[in-house]
Amino acid sequence: MFTHDTTLRVRYGETDQMGYVYYGTYPLYFEVGRVEALRSLGFPYRAIEEQGVMLPVHDMQVKYHKPARYDDALTIRTTIRTMPGVRIIFDYQVLDANGTLLTEASTTLVFVDRATGRPRMAMQELMDALAPYFT
Amino acid sequence: MFTHDTTLRVRYGETDQMGYVYYGTYPLYFEVGRVEALRSLGFPYRAIEEQGVMLPVHDMQVKYHKPARYDDALTIRTTIRTMPGVRIIFDYQVLDANGTLLTEASTTLVFVDRATGRPRMAMQELMDALAPYFT
Amino acid sequence: MFTHDTTLRVRYGETDQMGYVYYGTYPLYFEVGRVEALRSLGFPYRAIEEQGVMLPVHDMQVKYHKPARYDDALTIRTTIRTMPGVRIIFDYQVLDANGTLLTEASTTLVFVDRATGRPRMAMQELMDALAPYFT
Amino acid sequence: MFTHDTTLRVRYGETDQMGYVYYGTYPLYFEVGRVEALRSLGFPYRAIEEQGVMLPVHDMQVKYHKPARYDDALTIRTTIRTMPGVRIIFDYQVLDANGTLLTEASTTLVFVDRATGRPRMAMQELMDALAPYFT
Repeated sequence: MFTHDTTLRVRYGETDQMGYVYYGTYPLYFEVGRVEALRSLGFPYRAIEEQGVMLPVHDMQVKYHKPARYDDALTIRTTIRTMPGVRIIFDYQVLDANGTLLTEASTTLVFVDRATGRPRMAMQELMDALAPYFT
Repeated sequence: MFTHDTTLRVRYGETDQMGYVYYGTYPLYFEVGRVEALRSLGFPYRAIEEQGVMLPVHDMQVKYHKPARYDDALTIRTTIRTMPGVRIIFDYQVLDANGTLLTEASTTLVFVDRATGRPRMAMQELMDALAPYFT
Repeated sequence: MFTHDTTLRVRYGETDQMGYVYYGTYPLYFEVGRVEALRSLGFPYRAIEEQGVMLPVHDMQVKYHKPARYDDALTIRTTIRTMPGVRIIFDYQVLDANGTLLTEASTTLVFVDRATGRPRMAMQELMDALAPYFT
Repeated sequence: MFTHDTTLRVRYGETDQMGYVYYGTYPLYFEVGRVEALRSLGFPYRAIEEQGVMLPVHDMQVKYHKPARYDDALTIRTTIRTMPGVRIIFDYQVLDANGTLLTEASTTLVFVDRATGRPRMAMQELMDALAPYFT
């Protein structure tokens, strides 16, 4: 399995009047997590799109355990547990500065050929880059 | 079961460069759906908070079937399938103008007493308002 | 001059922990205002883009007089005071349900030919539709 | 005058279907700029609020010169040109990785006593921290 950590700081506009991070802000954080995970493997998401491949989100599950607050320095821990095929599954843990688990989530994304609009296999180079983590 | 429809129009800022509604925009749409469902029952969410009750989201599941696009007039169909207790579950269907199902989701929210920070039962008045739909 | 009113309701996710609508939410409201103003003239913004014309924002000025709050039913009053040429200027007033002025703003947008990336004149049909308001 | 640079990376959800950063995303970036500028002076914004002081935005002016795009690494250059009193003015420049100026802006914020809701002078400690930059 492959795991990558990235950190970000909660913006004021991402809170709501409960004083917590709005529940709809987290998908942006998960996006940051998976984009930075792919970048660390040598696959900037921008380069993936420039190859004519899109990665729309197919489904998402989120469990909100504890609230995050304004200005918190959060760690987004992104994990790939299975080799991608037509789909790639990212799991996420959002941790505060003490390592407390605030939120858990999972998203499934589909590799789509932009020209045809049809699903396709993950790029071979991505599978090659991930293979060492699954032996 | 109780069902309520509300409509909204996709804003430009809610799209992303794929030309679709960003996957992280939908939680805002679900919020509109459940808030309008509660309002139709006589419970503006603002009034709930003014009674000292918060309703944070505990978990969310989303299936993205087809993309929504800029300026689409979407129907958010919100359904309550079981009587609330400490928790209330809202199911959502996002439909386009032709009635095609674009997205399905479910969220569980928890009634929390703001003063104590502890879970509490749904307000009796809300259960009274819902009761006729579950007989 | 041409004026058009549209209404919207403040979403929870649009507030921040001050309990007000986040200052960065208003540009979304202005977008709703000008899009609905153009629609009322017979120019859905989607149709403008489908003609190969983009309308990026060139500049924006905002004065925040009084805060808007969650669930407020706001009126976005959008005014075009001068006939468009290469640019079109929209002025906005955000009013609460009592008609109190909360926010004032102005944005200048530029008509751009998507194929060439260069500024161009407003569509003749739009100028024809606006002309009766400027005689 | 006091200047502080901070960097951030454009998120996918911050773009729109033109393929640019949505014009309404920039106020979030300006917020990051001024918050990090204040932090560098020893004033985390969270600590300011914990002292019972709010800093709502009074007005904003933005000039959009060139578009920013997905995944761009942007520098937010925040400048305080005059000593704060009841108000504090932040100027911003958004630069791309080549140092090209994409966006310029200015915001005026007001120091407000949360208890009374009335404007007040900037904290003496903040003026002391800024004084060396204005001699």
